[in-house]
Amino acid sequence: MKKIVLDCLGGDNGLPAMLSGAITALQQNPGLQLVLVGDAEVIKPQVTAFGDRVEIIDAKVNIAMDEHPTQAIRTKPDSSLVLGLEQLKKRDDCGAFVSAGSTGAVLTGGFMKVGRIAGVSRPALCPTLPSIVDGQDFMLLDCGANMDCTAVQLVQFAVMANEYRKAMGMENPRIALLNVGAESTKGNEVVKQAHSLLTKLHDAGLLNFVGNIEGDQVFLGTADVVVSDGFWGNVLLKSIEGTVKFVFKSVKNVIKSSFGGKIGGLFLGGKLKKFKAEKMDKTNATIFLGLKKAVVKMHGNADAAKVTSALQYAMTVVDFDMNARIEEAVAKAEPLLIEENV
Amino acid sequence: MKKIVLDCLGGDNGLPAMLSGAITALQQNPGLQLVLVGDAEVIKPQVTAFGDRVEIIDAKVNIAMDEHPTQAIRTKPDSSLVLGLEQLKKRDDCGAFVSAGSTGAVLTGGFMKVGRIAGVSRPALCPTLPSIVDGQDFMLLDCGANMDCTAVQLVQFAVMANEYRKAMGMENPRIALLNVGAESTKGNEVVKQAHSLLTKLHDAGLLNFVGNIEGDQVFLGTADVVVSDGFWGNVLLKSIEGTVKFVFKSVKNVIKSSFGGKIGGLFLGGKLKKFKAEKMDKTNATIFLGLKKAVVKMHGNADAAKVTSALQYAMTVVDFDMNARIEEAVAKAEPLLIEENV
Repeated sequence: MKKIVLDCLGGDNGLPAMLSGAITALQQNPGLQLVLVGDAEVIKPQVTAFGDRVEIIDAKVNIAMDEHPTQAIRTKPDSSLVLGLEQLKKRDDCGAFVSAGSTGAVLTGGFMKVGRIAGVSRPALCPTLPSIVDGQDFMLLDCGANMDCTAVQLVQFAVMANEYRKAMGMENPRIALLNVGAESTKGNEVVKQAHSLLTKLHDAGLLNFVGNIEGDQVFLGTADVVVSDGFWGNVLLKSIEGTVKFVFKSVKNVIKSSFGGKIGGLFLGGKLKKFKAEKMDKTNATIFLGLKKAVVKMHGNADAAKVTSALQYAMTVVDFDMNARIEEAVAKAEPLLIEENV
Repeated sequence: MKKIVLDCLGGDNGLPAMLSGAITALQQNPGLQLVLVGDAEVIKPQVTAFGDRVEIIDAKVNIAMDEHPTQAIRTKPDSSLVLGLEQLKKRDDCGAFVSAGSTGAVLTGGFMKVGRIAGVSRPALCPTLPSIVDGQDFMLLDCGANMDCTAVQLVQFAVMANEYRKAMGMENPRIALLNVGAESTKGNEVVKQAHSLLTKLHDAGLLNFVGNIEGDQVFLGTADVVVSDGFWGNVLLKSIEGTVKFVFKSVKNVIKSSFGGKIGGLFLGGKLKKFKAEKMDKTNATIFLGLKKAVVKMHGNADAAKVTSALQYAMTVVDFDMNARIEEAVAKAEPLLIEENV
């Protein structure tokens, strides 16, 4: 397995959370090898037990959550984010980069340092979300990397996700388009045009487009990929997160508010927590699809446990070599898309 | 109190659900007077007990959920939707119209038959959603009536909702803009421009703009109005509904899956149901803000209980005379908006 590079300074919880999460991941996964980018003086004494499974790149500069992405990447060549991405870029033995830094900085950095797969217009942020069908989830992309997407860009997201899911072992992934109704005439201008283009790709046998999907249907297990502009996708993703928190908080209040509720809560509380952790924390780590190597973004507020789970996710994509597949699929789709834009 | 006109044919569940919901509402609210638009032969024998509190307008034609709105309104002058809206339009003793018909048809019908308040560009669909703060909710608009909104239209939504909430007794409503981050530079082009316009209105003392709000923060009780394009707003609304269903379904599975879970469920199940009904069914009925009289849209799949609750909501807005207030507020805001568009 290739090595995973971890940005130990990014995110709200900084070095302590990253380091603690990394150590747990190393303990749990004997095959895992890490390149830790951060303050070497602090890191070194804590990872001696892992010998040459851990490499340290010293970095003391962090890119803060509110810095302007492009400017930060340009003016902070010694930041943990830039140094880490450069390791990923130049070293054949490194297969993935993981960071809890700001979405904009990680994306811009990945874009500038690692580079896009040939033919890809915009890399996309694509978390995996659960469904009510056990063992079945869906990928949502884009989720916030790209605002004001064109229809062609939406279709490229579909093409990339299709290849990703196929590479991960899924046959004929069902691709749906996030919209406000089932009919092809529904939605705004961009989404109507995307519907028409995806139908063309479907008819040409390039992917399995199953039509529009509404925000209340994404959990039904009827789509493996949900395609969206980064703005709507981010609205969807965050509202899902917010609603889950809201419902659990409200359920907690219901439990607290009466004797019967308290007793029910005693029996149920731990199980609900487990469900929440297992089902919903999957959205924590997401890959940027369309870059030449795997760049994984964690939640900005990732704690140690989430760092561990993000590293576990990265292990599933670290040897992931999608360039050729995505490049070929994007090239195949291109003539059908260009035609439409003439 | 003015009379409420009920479209008895619209919606997935048709006349039986509408009639049964109406009868319960009449039983529970002695002051309620209804104009029922639907098959008089079926309705009449069931409402004799209410004497002259119920008036019947015979209509046997329905506008189906999948019909083209404008075409349906034009070619079906004898439909329950059109006949009902005409009652609302022409009669001073009617103050609200309630329908579970298709959103497009109800909006187009309201637009064509009842008409917009002077100066309003687009009426908006604005349901009220709960927050974690007891007794506090937020209005989300637009929620699906208008695709591809301009920044100026978003700002008009804010102005209308501000007047609505003030008319309902709220002092200084907090207006937020749905976005993907807190900073004014975040979001797509429309939302960035809307942010700048809302800031101008705030600085001019016309409304209380509290800035951007993300999809996971809408439940925190920090905003009374959340402004959005109809496409994103619909995505948000439906994803909230879908997530609530998903979490409850999953909780049910957790309850069923073990003995301890089952016992917990026995104590908790009814309470959770009650919470869901009380908190989440509020999204069932929503007003179209910007029309000359109150047009209320129910969920297409509204059952009898939801018809009753929609009629109860309509009772709170039936004497609602917002024309002058909204007209004045829109006119006051206009110079600031036009300037920006020059």
